Amino acid sequence: MTIEAEGVAELQNAELEMTPELAELYRDFDAHHLAPLWTQTSDVLTFHPRSEAVPFVWRWRDLYPLAERSGELVPVGRGGERRAIALANPGLRGAPYASPTIWAAIQYLGPRETAPEHRHAQNAFRFVVEGEGVWTVVNGDPVAMRRGDFLLTPGWNFHGHHNDTDHPMAWIDGLDVPLSDYIDVGFFEYGTERVTDEASPDVSRSERLWAYPGLRPLSALDDRVSSPLSAYRWEHTDRALTAQLELEDEGHPATVEQGHAAIRYVNPTTGGDVMPTLRAEFHRLRSGALTPERHEVGSSVWQVFDGRGTFVVGGVRHALEKGDLVVVPSWIPWSIEAKSEFDLFRFNDGPVIERLGFARTLVSRS
Amino acid sequence: MTIEAEGVAELQNAELEMTPELAELYRDFDAHHLAPLWTQTSDVLTFHPRSEAVPFVWRWRDLYPLAERSGELVPVGRGGERRAIALANPGLRGAPYASPTIWAAIQYLGPRETAPEHRHAQNAFRFVVEGEGVWTVVNGDPVAMRRGDFLLTPGWNFHGHHNDTDHPMAWIDGLDVPLSDYIDVGFFEYGTERVTDEASPDVSRSERLWAYPGLRPLSALDDRVSSPLSAYRWEHTDRALTAQLELEDEGHPATVEQGHAAIRYVNPTTGGDVMPTLRAEFHRLRSGALTPERHEVGSSVWQVFDGRGTFVVGGVRHALEKGDLVVVPSWIPWSIEAKSEFDLFRFNDGPVIERLGFARTLVSRS
Amino acid sequence: MTIEAEGVAELQNAELEMTPELAELYRDFDAHHLAPLWTQTSDVLTFHPRSEAVPFVWRWRDLYPLAERSGELVPVGRGGERRAIALANPGLRGAPYASPTIWAAIQYLGPRETAPEHRHAQNAFRFVVEGEGVWTVVNGDPVAMRRGDFLLTPGWNFHGHHNDTDHPMAWIDGLDVPLSDYIDVGFFEYGTERVTDEASPDVSRSERLWAYPGLRPLSALDDRVSSPLSAYRWEHTDRALTAQLELEDEGHPATVEQGHAAIRYVNPTTGGDVMPTLRAEFHRLRSGALTPERHEVGSSVWQVFDGRGTFVVGGVRHALEKGDLVVVPSWIPWSIEAKSEFDLFRFNDGPVIERLGFARTLVSRS
Amino acid sequence: MTIEAEGVAELQNAELEMTPELAELYRDFDAHHLAPLWTQTSDVLTFHPRSEAVPFVWRWRDLYPLAERSGELVPVGRGGERRAIALANPGLRGAPYASPTIWAAIQYLGPRETAPEHRHAQNAFRFVVEGEGVWTVVNGDPVAMRRGDFLLTPGWNFHGHHNDTDHPMAWIDGLDVPLSDYIDVGFFEYGTERVTDEASPDVSRSERLWAYPGLRPLSALDDRVSSPLSAYRWEHTDRALTAQLELEDEGHPATVEQGHAAIRYVNPTTGGDVMPTLRAEFHRLRSGALTPERHEVGSSVWQVFDGRGTFVVGGVRHALEKGDLVVVPSWIPWSIEAKSEFDLFRFNDGPVIERLGFARTLVSRS
Repeated sequence: MTIEAEGVAELQNAELEMTPELAELYRDFDAHHLAPLWTQTSDVLTFHPRSEAVPFVWRWRDLYPLAERSGELVPVGRGGERRAIALANPGLRGAPYASPTIWAAIQYLGPRETAPEHRHAQNAFRFVVEGEGVWTVVNGDPVAMRRGDFLLTPGWNFHGHHNDTDHPMAWIDGLDVPLSDYIDVGFFEYGTERVTDEASPDVSRSERLWAYPGLRPLSALDDRVSSPLSAYRWEHTDRALTAQLELEDEGHPATVEQGHAAIRYVNPTTGGDVMPTLRAEFHRLRSGALTPERHEVGSSVWQVFDGRGTFVVGGVRHALEKGDLVVVPSWIPWSIEAKSEFDLFRFNDGPVIERLGFARTLVSRS
Repeated sequence: MTIEAEGVAELQNAELEMTPELAELYRDFDAHHLAPLWTQTSDVLTFHPRSEAVPFVWRWRDLYPLAERSGELVPVGRGGERRAIALANPGLRGAPYASPTIWAAIQYLGPRETAPEHRHAQNAFRFVVEGEGVWTVVNGDPVAMRRGDFLLTPGWNFHGHHNDTDHPMAWIDGLDVPLSDYIDVGFFEYGTERVTDEASPDVSRSERLWAYPGLRPLSALDDRVSSPLSAYRWEHTDRALTAQLELEDEGHPATVEQGHAAIRYVNPTTGGDVMPTLRAEFHRLRSGALTPERHEVGSSVWQVFDGRGTFVVGGVRHALEKGDLVVVPSWIPWSIEAKSEFDLFRFNDGPVIERLGFARTLVSRS
Repeated sequence: MTIEAEGVAELQNAELEMTPELAELYRDFDAHHLAPLWTQTSDVLTFHPRSEAVPFVWRWRDLYPLAERSGELVPVGRGGERRAIALANPGLRGAPYASPTIWAAIQYLGPRETAPEHRHAQNAFRFVVEGEGVWTVVNGDPVAMRRGDFLLTPGWNFHGHHNDTDHPMAWIDGLDVPLSDYIDVGFFEYGTERVTDEASPDVSRSERLWAYPGLRPLSALDDRVSSPLSAYRWEHTDRALTAQLELEDEGHPATVEQGHAAIRYVNPTTGGDVMPTLRAEFHRLRSGALTPERHEVGSSVWQVFDGRGTFVVGGVRHALEKGDLVVVPSWIPWSIEAKSEFDLFRFNDGPVIERLGFARTLVSRS
Repeated sequence: MTIEAEGVAELQNAELEMTPELAELYRDFDAHHLAPLWTQTSDVLTFHPRSEAVPFVWRWRDLYPLAERSGELVPVGRGGERRAIALANPGLRGAPYASPTIWAAIQYLGPRETAPEHRHAQNAFRFVVEGEGVWTVVNGDPVAMRRGDFLLTPGWNFHGHHNDTDHPMAWIDGLDVPLSDYIDVGFFEYGTERVTDEASPDVSRSERLWAYPGLRPLSALDDRVSSPLSAYRWEHTDRALTAQLELEDEGHPATVEQGHAAIRYVNPTTGGDVMPTLRAEFHRLRSGALTPERHEVGSSVWQVFDGRGTFVVGGVRHALEKGDLVVVPSWIPWSIEAKSEFDLFRFNDGPVIERLGFARTLVSRS
């Protein structure tokens, strides 16, 4: 459904003259843990989504040095669990949340360090904007992490990370922690102190079983709620985007819109999103491409992977470079302008919004 | 998945000695809108759901008189929109929410009053514990409201209410407002000041098209996200529950467990829940029946429709009577003991929990 | 997809001069159990469906007396299993099939007779155009059969019938036997000689559990391949059709087209067809109503339930009365003209055609 | 559901003494195009599937020379359409069908020849057991055909083939023609005499859009009834099977059973079968591996791709070599014994059987 964005108007509350009787009624409401709608209509209902979260940009040139300093000062291990530093949306009053539904953090692992194993109901992924040398071990399967890779840890899978090299590595974590905390669905269990398999293979067992286009193991025909494929490798993403732009050049439908290639990471057992609460995509714009302004229900986080461009969000222009992160709250308009070939990773709460029937998009072509 | 409930243990945070360098790091985190996980692990992750919402009981003998007094002091109309008084869970710091996902309110309409039309993305229903005489007009279709009826207003349908009699009427509203506010998906539009159809038919057009067991209009074969049936009448609910208990007496499988009959209200186009965010059920226990203790992920509100019994929630026993409401937050154990034949209406966020892949239940048979 | 009907043109075969070498090649094909496409293209491929089945009408005034005579001459019991007389499409070379996918028969049970229990993988239903007094016992659940009722026996359910009265009764059986025979999926088991429950209740246990609009037993939340509801009663069908025509009179969308009300019988656990291979519907036309000409992929059988009208099939007009049956093969155009209020039961292979991705319809409005 | 195989017993017909009255009744049945069930029960119903199709083996050493001779004697072109020679199951009375649901043929294209474009509702695929040099052009997209590739032409896509080389090429075609003919769903249209794109790229546009593990173009998020991926390349199949056997060696679950690796070709938009009526798989057995005996509802065709082994079907042992084809009718037991590493392509009507609710398998471990 396409809906016209509203202005700043607010719904009205009832306008009542305060009488002694009314004051007593309100006191009695309080005493009985009740709240009248008519004094709060404008808080509870809005003409369109008006998130407390605000659009915000975090710079990689700030983030990475802070992660490095944490590496020097803060050990990683049981208690604390992860050396992860979360994006805290300035609108969300100090909560360590990028948006009401999304946790996003930079995680840092020093040379030869191990983040111990645990599992939780919350769904998680990693995305690597630079570096390599860490293996994330998911249910005992070591998964190499390299620049451009997108790596999954769906809910209730044991996982730990270990750095098999003499240099540090950092990456981005995305989780549904704010949503799962809000709706009270979290479970947690400690696992082993060290990862259960310290091997460092190039390719995980998950990929050896699942990473073939259109082929499914006959031993695994039941559909999975979350993708059984733990790693989506950069070489495939890059080739897919390159091919879309070439097909566009050859005159065939392939891109989202002129000069804008994009893929969604999907669960090969269903063709749908990789996890029930998180969607992930990769976008590539040709130099000079400009996307129309979009309003979308639900919140997104973008990270620049390569190139330079301008991200316009809520009417404000931000020049972005490699590693920079920007959060787009629900229904805040956004567009992108590429100054060079411009590669961006995106994740959002799209599956939540769609599964609950709330999806709307408004595309304004200028 | 069945999971053993954990004790009161909390996850550990990292224990670090505060040094000047660490203090400076933390100040720099603040300055850049960042938050370290290791100091907050125990807030963000828990061994099992630990809702801020608390179990709580609201008494009909308190609610109804407060609604009556509101009827005298507060007009209903544009601005305010509804004379609805919401259950405000004492754990949720003043928010007008029964739980993090559920809005529940008593709504009151005086003789000949009209609540004006509007529509919103949020999903709503009504349940009538006593009285009659109001018609809720859903997209122009007048739907009579009578004791025991369950009535739908799925998202983005225009709706208003009008009292066609000389006596007041009150009922319960249930909405997904807390969730939709939290995830920022709300849209709203004003409609007409009066209802668009002031007729007062016994049966709505929606029922005339849809309220037949196993029959579907050939003119409406596309599935609907929400049920096209606006009213689920008490006579059917009552007959279904009566039949389940009779079948049990005759030795046939029909009830949830010994002495415990129950139905779920469903969307006839899919057989699934009536709306994407809200589930509703009706339960009948024989006198003397006792349910096992259950932990469930997700929060519920129960309202006694008839009879007397004890609701045990979080280890505390509450004797309940007609109209009393009790909220059960996520993973708080509950059981019911019937002192007479005991009829209860229940609604919860089950579809949200299931669609997002977080459902777990633990049944403890003593 | 709507496709224009083609004329009588046939695809061409290759035109080859027969040489000794070619003759030898064809002999060698035969010897090796091979068949060249190029000599058979026009048999194997057609511009549009060209069924061997032909449109045909069976008259109730012929059928019922033949069934009565069978009642006198042929016992019912183990071996033979049923006193059922099948419609044998004249185009299908003697096979006892109404169409390539549908078995349709009149079944007759004399006073106090019993048809013994058995079960088969094939799906079956009964429809009653007149009479009452027989109970079909489905997995031990006695289901009364009365005029206008539609009754299910999905695959692999034990079932038998017994006549509890001193008068005979006849009804229509519909099965997927031709299809299941063709694709080799049939299984069969004998059951008891007499029905396992000789009670004659007005309402079956299946209905007591399931026959409520929009209510589902909490004890049966798993979806079923076939409907768990064994009986769809005439009173509901009649009321649904009456309401559709009244709603049309009041100016609301409800009917398929002007003067043409219709319902589909559905599985309450899914909202879809009652069984995976058979669809059933009931149509009511106002006196004077005329449907547009339709071509549909898949074959149907219609039975007049009440009233008088003209059924035009393949360009030929047939005046039909109560009980008359007409088969419409795939892609043969049909339309109906009502001479009075005209009630018709219809069943077809729609779920097969749709599940296998072959559905097309062409509606020609004159 | 696992069902024990029955012996050769047949259902009984009714045993009636022929009287003049009964003879007259039967004559009247004939005259009215009716057929009594009681004389035909044993034809119509069977204890288990008893296909008219028989197990049969076609040898590549016979097929290929006959295809070559056809290449000399029979032109390819409009009229005839394809130089395809179909497997005609000896049990099916001369019909050019491998089984009641499956058409399988060897198709042969001489140097520089073109098979003209057409389209049909029937679904088709190609599998290449040897050779290369032909491009199949699917809706204008040229798709190279090479040894080990599995290539799709779902229903209603225009397609033609052209040989871009100076040597002939042969391959296997699989279609659902027998089923679609039987249920009367076929449509056909001629296309151009020559292929619409005579380019000979290594990689089709379809693959450039879709052949990436777990990546989906954002421009194509709607699910497709049939796979949008036109070519499943041997290199991926081979790597997937190799990996399964290596994982088995390393002690991880990956294979169907000890020494038996297998993949199913799937539609990347759903994870399900590539087309609504046809399933395709590739199996690799280690030398010495032996599969348990299986009864399956539905019919299959196997083709040896590489290696040597024994195929036991219906109790008869057949030594098979590269290119040999064997058909397994419904419910006929089969097993495979590998004399070397043994690679087999398999296709069957699995999606039909499953979508219609008739699937059963019986695995007998010795």
